[in-house]
Amino acid sequence: MLYVDLNCDMGESFGAYTLGRDEEILGYVTSANIACGFHAGDPATMRKTVKLALDKGVAIGAHPGFQDLAGFGRRNMFISPQEAYDLTVYQIGALYGFVKAEGATLRHVKPHGALYNMAARDAALAEAIAEAVYKVDGNLILFGLAGGELGKAARKIGLRAASEVFADRTYQEDGSLTPRTHPNALLHDTEAAVNQVIRMVKKGKVGTLQGTDAAIQAETICIHGDGAHAVEFAAHISQALQEAGIQPAPVHAFL
Amino acid sequence: MLYVDLNCDMGESFGAYTLGRDEEILGYVTSANIACGFHAGDPATMRKTVKLALDKGVAIGAHPGFQDLAGFGRRNMFISPQEAYDLTVYQIGALYGFVKAEGATLRHVKPHGALYNMAARDAALAEAIAEAVYKVDGNLILFGLAGGELGKAARKIGLRAASEVFADRTYQEDGSLTPRTHPNALLHDTEAAVNQVIRMVKKGKVGTLQGTDAAIQAETICIHGDGAHAVEFAAHISQALQEAGIQPAPVHAFL
Amino acid sequence: MLYVDLNCDMGESFGAYTLGRDEEILGYVTSANIACGFHAGDPATMRKTVKLALDKGVAIGAHPGFQDLAGFGRRNMFISPQEAYDLTVYQIGALYGFVKAEGATLRHVKPHGALYNMAARDAALAEAIAEAVYKVDGNLILFGLAGGELGKAARKIGLRAASEVFADRTYQEDGSLTPRTHPNALLHDTEAAVNQVIRMVKKGKVGTLQGTDAAIQAETICIHGDGAHAVEFAAHISQALQEAGIQPAPVHAFL
Amino acid sequence: MLYVDLNCDMGESFGAYTLGRDEEILGYVTSANIACGFHAGDPATMRKTVKLALDKGVAIGAHPGFQDLAGFGRRNMFISPQEAYDLTVYQIGALYGFVKAEGATLRHVKPHGALYNMAARDAALAEAIAEAVYKVDGNLILFGLAGGELGKAARKIGLRAASEVFADRTYQEDGSLTPRTHPNALLHDTEAAVNQVIRMVKKGKVGTLQGTDAAIQAETICIHGDGAHAVEFAAHISQALQEAGIQPAPVHAFL
Repeated sequence: MLYVDLNCDMGESFGAYTLGRDEEILGYVTSANIACGFHAGDPATMRKTVKLALDKGVAIGAHPGFQDLAGFGRRNMFISPQEAYDLTVYQIGALYGFVKAEGATLRHVKPHGALYNMAARDAALAEAIAEAVYKVDGNLILFGLAGGELGKAARKIGLRAASEVFADRTYQEDGSLTPRTHPNALLHDTEAAVNQVIRMVKKGKVGTLQGTDAAIQAETICIHGDGAHAVEFAAHISQALQEAGIQPAPVHAFL
Repeated sequence: MLYVDLNCDMGESFGAYTLGRDEEILGYVTSANIACGFHAGDPATMRKTVKLALDKGVAIGAHPGFQDLAGFGRRNMFISPQEAYDLTVYQIGALYGFVKAEGATLRHVKPHGALYNMAARDAALAEAIAEAVYKVDGNLILFGLAGGELGKAARKIGLRAASEVFADRTYQEDGSLTPRTHPNALLHDTEAAVNQVIRMVKKGKVGTLQGTDAAIQAETICIHGDGAHAVEFAAHISQALQEAGIQPAPVHAFL
Repeated sequence: MLYVDLNCDMGESFGAYTLGRDEEILGYVTSANIACGFHAGDPATMRKTVKLALDKGVAIGAHPGFQDLAGFGRRNMFISPQEAYDLTVYQIGALYGFVKAEGATLRHVKPHGALYNMAARDAALAEAIAEAVYKVDGNLILFGLAGGELGKAARKIGLRAASEVFADRTYQEDGSLTPRTHPNALLHDTEAAVNQVIRMVKKGKVGTLQGTDAAIQAETICIHGDGAHAVEFAAHISQALQEAGIQPAPVHAFL
Repeated sequence: MLYVDLNCDMGESFGAYTLGRDEEILGYVTSANIACGFHAGDPATMRKTVKLALDKGVAIGAHPGFQDLAGFGRRNMFISPQEAYDLTVYQIGALYGFVKAEGATLRHVKPHGALYNMAARDAALAEAIAEAVYKVDGNLILFGLAGGELGKAARKIGLRAASEVFADRTYQEDGSLTPRTHPNALLHDTEAAVNQVIRMVKKGKVGTLQGTDAAIQAETICIHGDGAHAVEFAAHISQALQEAGIQPAPVHAFL
C-alpha cells in the first residue's frame, strides 16, 4: 500500500477576524498545521482548532511563523538562528499547552510562510529550527520543502522529516519550485495537479518546466485552506489519490 | 522544621529593554515566576531565565498575564472566564516549551498583576485559571493571594495551591491586603517586614491596621525583583528566616 | 430642512484579514469613522479607506480604540485619563497623516467600542478624550452617545459635539440605551427602527421599554457595517429618511 | 559662520521599560528624532518627549521604524515600497498629533535602524519614504546617510534633505560607512571622532580606512543616546565644535 499525507494550514483566524474554512477542510486532510499566535491565530482559535482536529481524527502539528501579524508571516525577516530557535520553541510550546489540555498528541511541526521558505534555503536557520523541535520533543516530525534544508537539518539531529510537495505549483529541472514571480509558477488545471502528485507518490518523479523529469520525494502534500475552491479541491484530491491506490494518512502512521 | 517559599517575578525584560536583577535575585529566592510574553518577557528572555533558574536550583513557574505589554499587565481588563482559560493555557504552554527543551520540570503557576488581583476576588475567573492549569498539568501548584479565590478554585479542581503573603504590605482585619491607595498600605521598615513574615509562618497570624490579629497562611512570600534594594532585601529576608528556624524551600518540596 | 448624519465604523480590516463591506456602505452613509490601528485597522487599510471615503464624498473621522486588537477594542480596560488622552492623540494623529497626505480634511472623532461606552459614563475619561481632540484640532467634532459624558466634555472644552443615536437599539425611560444583556435590547424590525430614528430627528423623542417617551437629540445615527444585511439596511434607512423630509448630511455641514 | 546639526534618537522607552538618558542628552543636541511606537516608543513617551524637546528648544522630528518592537526595528524586513510609504505616513502622523497638541512644529523625519539602512541602499524604498514625508508635509526635512538613496529621493520629489554623518564610525574610500562586522568599524578615540567631524564640516572630506580622503557632506551628526558615556560625549562634541568655529543648530535654521 502507498500512503501520503495531506496537510493544511489551520487556525489562522484572529480575534474578530475569520480566515479559512477549517472545519470543512478537516474532513479531507490528514494533518493540520495550527498557527500559534505569531503570524496568525490566537489562544481561543488554537483551542477550538485543536478540538476540531481531534474530533475529525486529523493529526495535529504546530505552525510557527515570524512575529509579524501585520504581514501574516509572509515577509522575510532577517533573524538570527538563535532567534529562530527561540520563536520555534515558544510557539510549539504554546500549542502544546492546548494539545496537552485535551489529552491529545502533538505530531509534527511545519514552519509558516517566509520562515518556511527561508529555512528551505538557509542551513543555519533550518538547523536552529530542527534543534528547537528536537529539544521540545524528539518524537515530532518536521515538515520541510522536498529537497530543502529543513529535511536535512531534521535528519542530522535525529528527527524524522517529511518531504513536502505542492499539487498546484510547477517545478524546475533541479527539483526546486518555480518561483511565484514566474508566469508559469502555478498549475491551474485540477487534473494536471492531481496527476502531478500521483506521479510524485508512485514514481518519485515530477515533470519540470524544462521538459525533463526531476526526482522528488512526496510524503506530504500541501493543501490550501483558503480560496474559493479550497474545500472542493481537497475533497477531489483525496478521492483521486484513493482511486489511484494511494491512501491518505498522517505522516506518523507510515513514515 | 518550618518551611516557606520565597518567590519572585522574573524574565520581565523584552527585546532591547532590560528589567529586574534576575541573576542576583536568583541567589536568594526558591521559586521563579517567569513571564511568558504577554505582559512582559519574550522567547529569548524566557530561554535565558529558565537556564538561570536551573543553574541556581530555583523552582520554575509560569507567570501568565494580560495581553497588555504597554500596561505591563497591570491594568484591569474585563475578559471572560473562557478568555482567561485560553491565555493561561497558551502562556503556560509557551514556557513549558523552554522548560522541556532544557529537560527541566515546570513546578508552579502564578498569575501576574491585574490578572492575579482580579482572580483573587472573582471566583469564575479563578476557576477558569485553575482549570487551565489543571488541564495542562495536574501536578502544577497554583499560587494565589492568601484567602483569595485562586486557592479555593485550585483545591476545588484538585490542584495544590500555595497561599501567598507579602512582607512589605499591611493587612486589614479581614485578612485582606490594605489597598495600595491607602496611605499606610506599605511597610517601609525592613525589620517590621521581616518580623511580619516570621510571625505569619510561625503563628499563622498577621497584625492588622485595625490593631487586631488576622489568621493567615504563609506558604510562599512574594519578593520584589526591581527597586533599588531588591537584592539586598531578598538576601536579608532569606537569612532572617533561617535564623528564625524557617527554611526557604520551593513549595513542591514541602507542600 | 431637517438634517441628520449617518455614520459607520470603517477600515477595520487588518493585514490578511478583511472585515466589513466598506466600499458598499460608503454609498449610503455621510460620515466614516476610520479605525486607527489599535483595536483594528492598519496603515494600508487606513490609506485605502481614506481614499474610498474621499471618492464617495463621505466625511472622514478618526475612530480611536483601546490597544486591544485581540479583543477588537470591545473589552473594558481600566486606563487612566492620561492614558486615554495619549491614545486618542496618537490615533487621531496617525489617521491625520493619511488625511493630510490626500489633501483632505479630518472632520470628527468617534471613540470605539469599550472606550466609547466607558467614556459615555465616566466624566474624567470623557474629558481626557475631549481635551485630546481639542488640542490636536479644535475644529473637530466629537461624536458621543446621546445624553452621555462625551458630549458634555466636548462642550465644556469648546468642541462641537454630535449626539449619536441607534436605530436598532431600544431605550430606557431615562433616555439611556437598554443594556445588550437585556432580552429586548434590540429592535429587530426594520420599519420600527426606521420609524424610531425619524421620530428622534423630527420630535426629539424616543419611545422607551417602559412605555414612556424620553427626550433625545439625534444628530448622527450609528449604522453597522458588518452583518448580513448591513448594506441593505443602510440603503433603506437613507431612502426612508429622505422620504420623510430628512436629508442625510455630514455633521459639519449642519451642526 | 559654519553650522551643523547634532541629532539623537529619543523617546525609545516603552511602557514599564526605560531606555536612554533623553533629558540629559537634550541639553546638547539640536534635533530630536522621536520614536513613533513601531520599533519603540508609546503614546505616553511620545507626549513626554515632545514636551522635553520643546522645553529645551530642540527641533522635533519623527523617527519611524519597522513594526518590530521585539527586534527594536534593527532586523531587516522585506516590505514593499507601498508598505514603507504606509508605515511612514502613519508614524509621522502619530507624532504630529502630539506636536500639534503642544502647538509646536514638526521639523524633520529620520527613519530608524534597519529601515534607515535599507533605504540608504534601495532607491525604491527611499522614494516611497520620501513620498510619504512629502505628502504629509512638504516642509519636512528628510535625514539620510551621506551619499545614500534617501537624500537623492528627497531632492527628486522636492524635499530638503540633510546629509548625516557619524562621529564614531570609520569610512571606506567610496565614502560609505565601514560595515559594523569589520574589526575597525568604530572610532574608539573621542578626539579622533571629534576631529573627524570637524574636518567633515570644514573641508567636506573624511579620511578612509584605505588611507585616502573621500568627499562627504556633513549637515547633521548622529549622536547616540544610550551607552555609558553618551551624555559626556554629546557635551564634549558640542563644545569642541563651537571651539572650532562651528555652531550647532537645527537643520531648518541653516539648510
